[in-house]
Amino acid sequence: MQAAVIGIGYWGPNLIRNFLASEKIDRVYVFDINKSRLDFVRKRFPLVTIADNIEQILNSDKIEMVAIATPVDTHFDTAKKALERNKHIWVEKPFTSSVEQAVILNQIAAERKLNIFVDHTFIYTGAVKKMKEIIDNNELGDLLYFDSVRINLGLFQSDVNVIWDLAPHDLSIMFYLMNKKPVAIAANGVANYYGHENIAHISVYFENNCFAHFHVNWTSPVKIRRMIAGGNKKMLVFDDMENSEKIKVYDSGIEMKEKEGIYHALVQYRIGDMYSPKLVHTEALALGVEEFINSIIEKRKPLTNGDDGLNVVKILEASDASIKQKGKLITL
Amino acid sequence: MQAAVIGIGYWGPNLIRNFLASEKIDRVYVFDINKSRLDFVRKRFPLVTIADNIEQILNSDKIEMVAIATPVDTHFDTAKKALERNKHIWVEKPFTSSVEQAVILNQIAAERKLNIFVDHTFIYTGAVKKMKEIIDNNELGDLLYFDSVRINLGLFQSDVNVIWDLAPHDLSIMFYLMNKKPVAIAANGVANYYGHENIAHISVYFENNCFAHFHVNWTSPVKIRRMIAGGNKKMLVFDDMENSEKIKVYDSGIEMKEKEGIYHALVQYRIGDMYSPKLVHTEALALGVEEFINSIIEKRKPLTNGDDGLNVVKILEASDASIKQKGKLITL
Amino acid sequence: MQAAVIGIGYWGPNLIRNFLASEKIDRVYVFDINKSRLDFVRKRFPLVTIADNIEQILNSDKIEMVAIATPVDTHFDTAKKALERNKHIWVEKPFTSSVEQAVILNQIAAERKLNIFVDHTFIYTGAVKKMKEIIDNNELGDLLYFDSVRINLGLFQSDVNVIWDLAPHDLSIMFYLMNKKPVAIAANGVANYYGHENIAHISVYFENNCFAHFHVNWTSPVKIRRMIAGGNKKMLVFDDMENSEKIKVYDSGIEMKEKEGIYHALVQYRIGDMYSPKLVHTEALALGVEEFINSIIEKRKPLTNGDDGLNVVKILEASDASIKQKGKLITL
Amino acid sequence: MQAAVIGIGYWGPNLIRNFLASEKIDRVYVFDINKSRLDFVRKRFPLVTIADNIEQILNSDKIEMVAIATPVDTHFDTAKKALERNKHIWVEKPFTSSVEQAVILNQIAAERKLNIFVDHTFIYTGAVKKMKEIIDNNELGDLLYFDSVRINLGLFQSDVNVIWDLAPHDLSIMFYLMNKKPVAIAANGVANYYGHENIAHISVYFENNCFAHFHVNWTSPVKIRRMIAGGNKKMLVFDDMENSEKIKVYDSGIEMKEKEGIYHALVQYRIGDMYSPKLVHTEALALGVEEFINSIIEKRKPLTNGDDGLNVVKILEASDASIKQKGKLITL
Repeated sequence: MQAAVIGIGYWGPNLIRNFLASEKIDRVYVFDINKSRLDFVRKRFPLVTIADNIEQILNSDKIEMVAIATPVDTHFDTAKKALERNKHIWVEKPFTSSVEQAVILNQIAAERKLNIFVDHTFIYTGAVKKMKEIIDNNELGDLLYFDSVRINLGLFQSDVNVIWDLAPHDLSIMFYLMNKKPVAIAANGVANYYGHENIAHISVYFENNCFAHFHVNWTSPVKIRRMIAGGNKKMLVFDDMENSEKIKVYDSGIEMKEKEGIYHALVQYRIGDMYSPKLVHTEALALGVEEFINSIIEKRKPLTNGDDGLNVVKILEASDASIKQKGKLITL
Repeated sequence: MQAAVIGIGYWGPNLIRNFLASEKIDRVYVFDINKSRLDFVRKRFPLVTIADNIEQILNSDKIEMVAIATPVDTHFDTAKKALERNKHIWVEKPFTSSVEQAVILNQIAAERKLNIFVDHTFIYTGAVKKMKEIIDNNELGDLLYFDSVRINLGLFQSDVNVIWDLAPHDLSIMFYLMNKKPVAIAANGVANYYGHENIAHISVYFENNCFAHFHVNWTSPVKIRRMIAGGNKKMLVFDDMENSEKIKVYDSGIEMKEKEGIYHALVQYRIGDMYSPKLVHTEALALGVEEFINSIIEKRKPLTNGDDGLNVVKILEASDASIKQKGKLITL
Repeated sequence: MQAAVIGIGYWGPNLIRNFLASEKIDRVYVFDINKSRLDFVRKRFPLVTIADNIEQILNSDKIEMVAIATPVDTHFDTAKKALERNKHIWVEKPFTSSVEQAVILNQIAAERKLNIFVDHTFIYTGAVKKMKEIIDNNELGDLLYFDSVRINLGLFQSDVNVIWDLAPHDLSIMFYLMNKKPVAIAANGVANYYGHENIAHISVYFENNCFAHFHVNWTSPVKIRRMIAGGNKKMLVFDDMENSEKIKVYDSGIEMKEKEGIYHALVQYRIGDMYSPKLVHTEALALGVEEFINSIIEKRKPLTNGDDGLNVVKILEASDASIKQKGKLITL
Repeated sequence: MQAAVIGIGYWGPNLIRNFLASEKIDRVYVFDINKSRLDFVRKRFPLVTIADNIEQILNSDKIEMVAIATPVDTHFDTAKKALERNKHIWVEKPFTSSVEQAVILNQIAAERKLNIFVDHTFIYTGAVKKMKEIIDNNELGDLLYFDSVRINLGLFQSDVNVIWDLAPHDLSIMFYLMNKKPVAIAANGVANYYGHENIAHISVYFENNCFAHFHVNWTSPVKIRRMIAGGNKKMLVFDDMENSEKIKVYDSGIEMKEKEGIYHALVQYRIGDMYSPKLVHTEALALGVEEFINSIIEKRKPLTNGDDGLNVVKILEASDASIKQKGKLITL
């Protein structure tokens, strides 16, 4: 099998390295409109084939899969073309710039029986896989809330706000772990520097009093990447800044007591032991590439597919609408 | 001077201890409707005088100041009576259950030239005083945002939601540090267990693109108490869970470059040194009691007075209205 | 029962408070040669009885137990007198200034069937009790090493070096947990400021390749209080500076493989899950006072008795001999 | 210029990558006796030239510099041969297996005007360079003590004990920062598993009451890499496990007061502000390679040369002698 990587920005070299490392990939083509990036690739990865232009890649019969790592507003055109030339596609997050675009791509892929892999890389980390296992084993009980913080002093993206840049990571994890359909969202925040928001808070409402919140910020002096999943049996914290013990499961919770005397005594909290499971350290991107290739071989949808990409883009689009109206509730 | 403390719950004993320790207070009266609490006080503080009822305190000519540490829904009645008997009052946070109540109390106090001290204790901590000093020295430049997290596995209050319980701390600090008037708020959250919300997120909008956010939660497995103040020159983090180095000032920020070539390069971030100032460790409540007494002697308003209490209650009341409508924007 | 506390320095008020709180103690006498300390006690604890001098305490038939919280070089004289007047004694750590003194006191107590309680307070903390339980359950397997660090920017003691000041805590914990007899010690360190060492490292050799090390320092800019107990099955860390999760048990270790191929592969390490047990938070000193009183009532030795005090003093005395000779090995 | 790397274990690939990245190196030869390692290199670095044997490298007139990354007991033979063929050499730490070997190599290099670079990589990190700058600026005042901890659950080395494996890092930093000559050392520790010690504590005595201590451990469940440098003006902590703020400078210390009243009051401690300087993040090994090449071009000794290697090996050899005699003092 042959693969191509289009777009060599921050993430592109990682894609190249992992496609090269796969034993199922014989040859890797690369293209970027920026010549200096191609020079960099030529030096760093002497074994890749530099394409002259995108058409060379799209016209090749031998290239079965195309990875698109260009800016998000170009995803749709490139992805559409690639699907129409019968390529399976790998698209960086966020999947598309709009819900409409995502729906169209998913439709084309379905008609042509092609695979769309959306690079929600975190889904393939040892930490997220362990969280999924814990939640599916019902260790936490019913999930009551999900809280995510991803803040840092980071590079502003020129084309999107902080929500489109950072929240796809956390939203994709939320969908994977919670397996519930959100019903409405509200987003607040501020654009301190120019048109795009650098701070945002997204509240997501689910049925049955389940709630999620996402805090993203490009202008924090400290780097925090932490998620809390609160269940009615146990609670879990994932702190990605820890060198070890990234996941901690707390046998802690709230208990409602029967009514008696004063109401005050009805709600009590309980603190128990904590444990931190061992995590597998295989590189997430390597597992993602493996999943993409295997899904093609096995003729099945990959774990992080176009539907997952669409779900995330729905929230992103609704967040934009909400934040422009200072938190107006948007029903999904 | 003589003082009285009404209501001996969690915080009452600290009030008694600090009034007893003041050299300007000769005698401390105490009352609570719960006999067992009075027995506890009698044993723990042999030097206090246990009153038979509230009237005994209110009728005494010698008692100049009355501290009210009862549940919030009783603040108004007791405070009003005390002011009408010409007592200076100390009221635990939150000041009142409604904006209307706060306005009435402030009016009575103004007419009778009496002092209202609202116990926003954090204002008297070494950490908050140091932050105020740093901000007033313009070290941070213009404040762009304020972000506060106060989450824990905590006792549910039977009479109020988590906003009324925890947010007064953070709101009072915000007003003290920012010295700006909020224009609108939106609150989202969830009540997972019974009628009162246990998780809430409050967004506060100021003029000129300034923004604040408060996250409070009674049902977090981990305890976090952290504030970030982002300025256009420097940024500050206050982590109250640290044993030392609670405040860190980061010479970090964002810089807008002149337009040239691609837009992407216009916004850059800068990371510099950090420093952590030494803090004074005097007990905040002792300083609060001293401020209350001195303000009476010097016939001036105390630092944390009824106006400050009112400002906080305005946000609390608006938050209630907003959260019941899933984040509807409430103009202040 | 009646009790007396002699010596009101840093720790004395805690003793008074806990003896007062005990339901089995009717009256608490206090004495200190410093009048200002007695004035402090009179104000802080109105219910205690201030003695005119030590003799008044020793001569009283009603006082059964005497707590000695004076500087260590006065322990022996006061303790000996108290035992000779048939008082059970409570002695602050370190028990005595020399092994000889400890042996004499233990002998007198044995002859007169009196109890000596040495205040190795840490033994009564929830953390140390939990560690003992874990080790006694053989969760760690055979103990291979014990490593303790207790460093801080602390008050220099005028009468002893940092070993006598800080190491008794850690040595008492080591004896309690390991239940093994040390065979030799070596101590290194330095006196940067005046005659007494402010930094010391004590190596303790046991039989069967078991080893312990203690690092104490009065001149560290950061405060560290951490112990590691390494077993051949699991390993445990106790970090007393953590607000929660003070104890962590790691299912990690080293495994010797059978010889094959290269020697390099013979020793492998294994990393597994970690758990952090819930701890009981009862004040250690309250439990110590209870144990002291109960041991008297039940006519048995208390948990931390004169033998434990003697074991610790043996190491302290040997450390002094070793450190003066730059780490010369001292056989015990 | 052409370079060769001999020995492709854990560190070898990093050497290859950095020699390849240098613009002054035209060609990089590689050799290892293990064929599978050469296959790995061929795939990972298609641009290197695989040598058939060491002789091919040593006989080449074009290869000016040889990096030796084989097990320590083979350093001497390979290094000696390379020097005798007029190659400048780069030797991994520890420099040699004995003081005698180091002296011989240094002598040959001096005679032939060849450069020996010992890979004390840490010296080229932003953190160590910043510490050096702070100390050379006399910010800390006179250095009173140096304390280093490097513990982890790590791979046992088959050929050496934990001192030879881990302590060279810390000893090289100590020599670089302190610029003082040690006079004696004592080492204690234990070999829990087989002949080589897995835990060791090394005390280093300097003149004028200056003292250093090194704790190394292959069998700790937690990873700690921390150094403290205590001066009579300020104190510094380097915590290499921190993601940011690795270096903290504390304006804290001890002050001797004039004699008056009780001795106790003579020594006081002072706690002031802390600051954490921004660090440069350039890869240390890249800077080391640059220094090695530049020192050859400029015909001068490199920063970390054979004398530095010898100084470290002196302590390692003395530690072996001491630890076998349970901490016997070894004069240097």
